[in-house]
Amino acid sequence: MSSVASPAVGSRSHAFAGVFSLLAPHMAELDRFLRGQIGAFEPEIRTMADYCIDTSGKRIRPALVFLSGWRGPGTVSADLVRVAAVVELVHLATLVHDDIMDEADVRRSRRTAAREYGATAAVLLGDALFAHALHLATQFPTTEICAAVSASTRRVCAGEIVQTLRRGSVNVTRADYQRIVDLKTAELFRVSCFLGARLAGSEPGYVEAASRFGRHLGIAYQIYDDLVDFFGDESRIGKTLGTDLASGKLTLPLLELLDRLGATDRATLLGEVTGERPPQPALRLRQMRELGIFAVVADAVHAEIDAARAALNEWPGHAPTSLLLGLCDGLRGQVAAVRGTETMAR
Amino acid sequence: MSSVASPAVGSRSHAFAGVFSLLAPHMAELDRFLRGQIGAFEPEIRTMADYCIDTSGKRIRPALVFLSGWRGPGTVSADLVRVAAVVELVHLATLVHDDIMDEADVRRSRRTAAREYGATAAVLLGDALFAHALHLATQFPTTEICAAVSASTRRVCAGEIVQTLRRGSVNVTRADYQRIVDLKTAELFRVSCFLGARLAGSEPGYVEAASRFGRHLGIAYQIYDDLVDFFGDESRIGKTLGTDLASGKLTLPLLELLDRLGATDRATLLGEVTGERPPQPALRLRQMRELGIFAVVADAVHAEIDAARAALNEWPGHAPTSLLLGLCDGLRGQVAAVRGTETMAR
Repeated sequence: MSSVASPAVGSRSHAFAGVFSLLAPHMAELDRFLRGQIGAFEPEIRTMADYCIDTSGKRIRPALVFLSGWRGPGTVSADLVRVAAVVELVHLATLVHDDIMDEADVRRSRRTAAREYGATAAVLLGDALFAHALHLATQFPTTEICAAVSASTRRVCAGEIVQTLRRGSVNVTRADYQRIVDLKTAELFRVSCFLGARLAGSEPGYVEAASRFGRHLGIAYQIYDDLVDFFGDESRIGKTLGTDLASGKLTLPLLELLDRLGATDRATLLGEVTGERPPQPALRLRQMRELGIFAVVADAVHAEIDAARAALNEWPGHAPTSLLLGLCDGLRGQVAAVRGTETMAR
Repeated sequence: MSSVASPAVGSRSHAFAGVFSLLAPHMAELDRFLRGQIGAFEPEIRTMADYCIDTSGKRIRPALVFLSGWRGPGTVSADLVRVAAVVELVHLATLVHDDIMDEADVRRSRRTAAREYGATAAVLLGDALFAHALHLATQFPTTEICAAVSASTRRVCAGEIVQTLRRGSVNVTRADYQRIVDLKTAELFRVSCFLGARLAGSEPGYVEAASRFGRHLGIAYQIYDDLVDFFGDESRIGKTLGTDLASGKLTLPLLELLDRLGATDRATLLGEVTGERPPQPALRLRQMRELGIFAVVADAVHAEIDAARAALNEWPGHAPTSLLLGLCDGLRGQVAAVRGTETMAR
């Protein structure tokens, strides 16, 4: 599944590559539209905006827009392209700001905007991207689209603030983790599905179902991402792994590990989270393997995938449904692929 | 004039205090409205949002909204209060981000959000304030308000980016300075007047005139602010002065000084701007006094005040006109007050 990546979504391993191959014309339109936005920025910042609006990302959120608003192949709806650009620009703005805070040097094989232009310019550039995203969202007949996007953006920021304030803290519960994931990741997945279904003119019940689907898929995707940070294969995933422990983020794999360690080991690991001790990712991965953490966290991913599927239970005949369910299969396949690598590694 | 500060706008010296005393009920409504917004933020970030939405600022942009939309004393329009909150929140968000970049410790006699919560949380908090401002802007019947505010926000950010990239550079022309001022300050003044006049239902010609007024008043205000950074009285102005030279910003007083210095002095001053030499604010102020820079820059302020007045020339009978012109008189009086202090200091 993951080897059939469409050129439009990059050549890296991709949880949703199967379904995405349908979207090549949509993604081409989106690229064209996004490139066309550069001219809307003030002349002095166009080069910088162009640098940030790169086209090598996974484009998961635009895909959710296109799939939730799916009415069959053929012409690509201009409304969906515009709103896909809105959610992607919001996402890109959060990445620009994330990379400042994480002091990241490289994203998608290029220097981050913060490294290229300095942290100060990057803060403002992220702001300008946010502002332009919301400006695009006002180019619909009513305020509904912009209202949904601005509220979502605020929730995404709130999630990232909570995560930031909990970094290096050992007082993180499962409820905290779920809340952070719900806000920082699931919210933009949810609103992408909402906007796609809404703009396609779906009936209110389906818009609500698609939104719930998006939320659960987003939670599943984030837990999968946190699982990969420990169990993934760096060369295959295409990013540095083991960063969560090093940056003091208590994600689900670590919470599960903590629950199963003896008092001494637990105290040492908590010291690694607070930064009092150097992180020992290799030791922690070995312990996770011994204690069956992969299966426990994979089960949490599957539970959310099941909840996403359930949201669409009553809508089997709707055009988007089978495609959205295909995303569930794709993510499930990706978990299985990591498990396969994992089995070989043991 | 400046001693008649209304309690609603703080007790500090204030260029617009005379006209503002009319606005006490409006500012009280605005404070109530802004405090009511705290509950709209996610519970985890309410304390932080509350910290940023303090009520001790000068509230110049809300005042421009209220005055441009003035229909006489009496009830305070809910639409104007909401849109005044929008522009103030956008302004507060830019301050939160500015203070991160300037590494400022204190603003309005309190620790900045960046010092209180850390730079990372402050980046995100500013984002959340922006997002909520634009969300409030969607609570009007059409997308026009949100479209205007989001475009302005992008332009303000663009201006700050240009300023940031020019910091410490000696290749700053008067045209660059004007462009920065136009984007980073005049834009939000302009849109505040636009929104006030528009929401009050003024005819298109007046909306356009009020917008032009706001833009020129904003330019005048920023040049005045840059003048005060050299010539002001710290205890009276209530903020640290001399920061522009120290942070490598070539503002109009410095550009005028550079034009009048001999080659050697000029080279030394440019070294202070680039940071190769320690800044010598006392020497530069002395030179500015010797070379009559105060009058030159004050003339530039007055020229913009005149342009602001001229924008309203054809609208003497409109209710807001005399109040808006009162702002011109207030700013002119403030320049004269600084000149008075200045004359005594010589």
